[in-house]
Amino acid sequence: MTLILALDFGGTKLAAAMVNVGSREWLRYERRLSPAKADASTDLEIMRSLIYSLLQGTKPAAIGVSFGGPVDASTGTVRLSHHVPGWENIPLKHLLEDEFGVPVGVDNDANVAALGEHRFGAGEGYDSLFYITVSTGVGGGWILNGKPWRGAGGMAGEIGHIVVDPAGPVCLCGKRGCVERLASGPYMAQNAREILENVDASAASRRVPPSRLLCERLRQREAFRREGRQGGEILRGLVGDDLKLLTGQLVSEAAAAGDDLAKEVLHKAAWALGVGIGNVANLMNPQRFVLGGGVTKAGDDFWQVLQRVALEIALPEVDFEIVPAVLGDDAPLWGAVALTSI
Amino acid sequence: MTLILALDFGGTKLAAAMVNVGSREWLRYERRLSPAKADASTDLEIMRSLIYSLLQGTKPAAIGVSFGGPVDASTGTVRLSHHVPGWENIPLKHLLEDEFGVPVGVDNDANVAALGEHRFGAGEGYDSLFYITVSTGVGGGWILNGKPWRGAGGMAGEIGHIVVDPAGPVCLCGKRGCVERLASGPYMAQNAREILENVDASAASRRVPPSRLLCERLRQREAFRREGRQGGEILRGLVGDDLKLLTGQLVSEAAAAGDDLAKEVLHKAAWALGVGIGNVANLMNPQRFVLGGGVTKAGDDFWQVLQRVALEIALPEVDFEIVPAVLGDDAPLWGAVALTSI
Repeated sequence: MTLILALDFGGTKLAAAMVNVGSREWLRYERRLSPAKADASTDLEIMRSLIYSLLQGTKPAAIGVSFGGPVDASTGTVRLSHHVPGWENIPLKHLLEDEFGVPVGVDNDANVAALGEHRFGAGEGYDSLFYITVSTGVGGGWILNGKPWRGAGGMAGEIGHIVVDPAGPVCLCGKRGCVERLASGPYMAQNAREILENVDASAASRRVPPSRLLCERLRQREAFRREGRQGGEILRGLVGDDLKLLTGQLVSEAAAAGDDLAKEVLHKAAWALGVGIGNVANLMNPQRFVLGGGVTKAGDDFWQVLQRVALEIALPEVDFEIVPAVLGDDAPLWGAVALTSI
Repeated sequence: MTLILALDFGGTKLAAAMVNVGSREWLRYERRLSPAKADASTDLEIMRSLIYSLLQGTKPAAIGVSFGGPVDASTGTVRLSHHVPGWENIPLKHLLEDEFGVPVGVDNDANVAALGEHRFGAGEGYDSLFYITVSTGVGGGWILNGKPWRGAGGMAGEIGHIVVDPAGPVCLCGKRGCVERLASGPYMAQNAREILENVDASAASRRVPPSRLLCERLRQREAFRREGRQGGEILRGLVGDDLKLLTGQLVSEAAAAGDDLAKEVLHKAAWALGVGIGNVANLMNPQRFVLGGGVTKAGDDFWQVLQRVALEIALPEVDFEIVPAVLGDDAPLWGAVALTSI
């Protein structure tokens, strides 16, 4: 039996799994959260213990690695991690090859997840596809002619930072109206929070005393209701009025429960992704878009807006499908398996 | 000597040239304008006469063809021409192979021009590039891993119809704020015309009698001048006040001569291209962007805005260069030559 070892350095979690070549089920699987004060050394130490626990004295034929951050895939050197310090210029491929004496492939998580979905998931049988993950960030990975396309400097796939609304809100990257600024979970939460706070600020500017804020909100709710709308009450309810606790997932839940303010935020996220996808379709004309990540589980409404907008933006002659990813959190691990055979 | 025959069905013009393999100079070259009432038959007839005039009894080793419209490159079948009727589903590759008994390659002009610049022009030595032509339309062609990337359905490269300003003016394709809507020559002329007509309409709505329109314009010009601006007078002067005669090139000329209104229109075009290029850089991370077409000859000012905006939109880690095409109108013919060897 030929064993493949797959590793996933995910930033907040570490996972390792082992599979027989050709199998679609993990032989063994281990997973650990990164400790609060993780650095590259602690990550590597934990991963090493996962590996030895998996191997149980056997030797894999190859090791594939998904890393949550920029990687030079040609040398297998990690450039840095945005989550964990100490990963600057770590030659991960060489470290693992030295220790385990087998060939190792390393690439960043978006590229590897794209490869995973292409080989084992929603992209099987499609030799051109764009995989998009919409989660705490928005990233993407290309498969063209059945192979990863990483770009001249390994930076391809950054759909999160294409601009879809030059008049939109300012993103961490400094630009306005990036896809990520409108569609990532944390930014969706922030967008909802800002609308709700403006409602409060508006009350404050009219010198509504704090004691009457509840009445004020009731008044606003009545006004919304007269227009047939729900104005964030469901969303407020989900966090017990503590807006700091808002998350993208709660925005999705409130939208599903009929909260119009949450729907507005969620639809704007779906709109941004739809414009991005339609633009990418016109530029690259891939067969499929495969969408993963927590935000894409927001429900039918989200998918309908996204599909409609993408079709509006794409030229009528440009055909494509947008489908949900199927491998979930295991996409990078399955991609790591695929990485060992290309 | 091995001869290659290159053909360019350009919509408004037909060109054919012959070259020795390995040479970078045309052995012979012929060019004709399409007649006013051209159809596919007349185009083919004219091209046939150009070919026989070039061949002078010799036989080429292969024929490469650039066609100004969508083509199924795998079968060499023209889908249609947007300029000349009768080209629907014409099997151009088979027609030419039957008549001349040599292998023929056919592709659309943007892909072929990209290949020409890649093999013989501004993209030589770069194995990933995006070629953009900015002329009466805005189109593009990809070279990835040293080969054309045409997309799953042959539709890749349509940068003209990616949306960069969802609040922008409506394009012929039905969307708002496409790159082409802001940056093509005819649309630049239209944008300038609409600003100038609004100036006139504004005078009309204030019931300025036609006889006083000149005074009104002088008044507006004085107002612009007080702000240190020129308000379209140079542009009006170039067309003798007949706004129907405006062209993209005249907008460029007026901008170069210091007309602030023309500059505004030209800068918006450069901005749209810059956003498009920055977005493409983030998505695909090619080494180079090669820009051809009449609009890109608009001068330093145009290039400066375009470069600045593209750098602002691209992530700091994404490197690329934007350079002017060097083959001019011959890019499709040189690409047709390259098409015979891949």
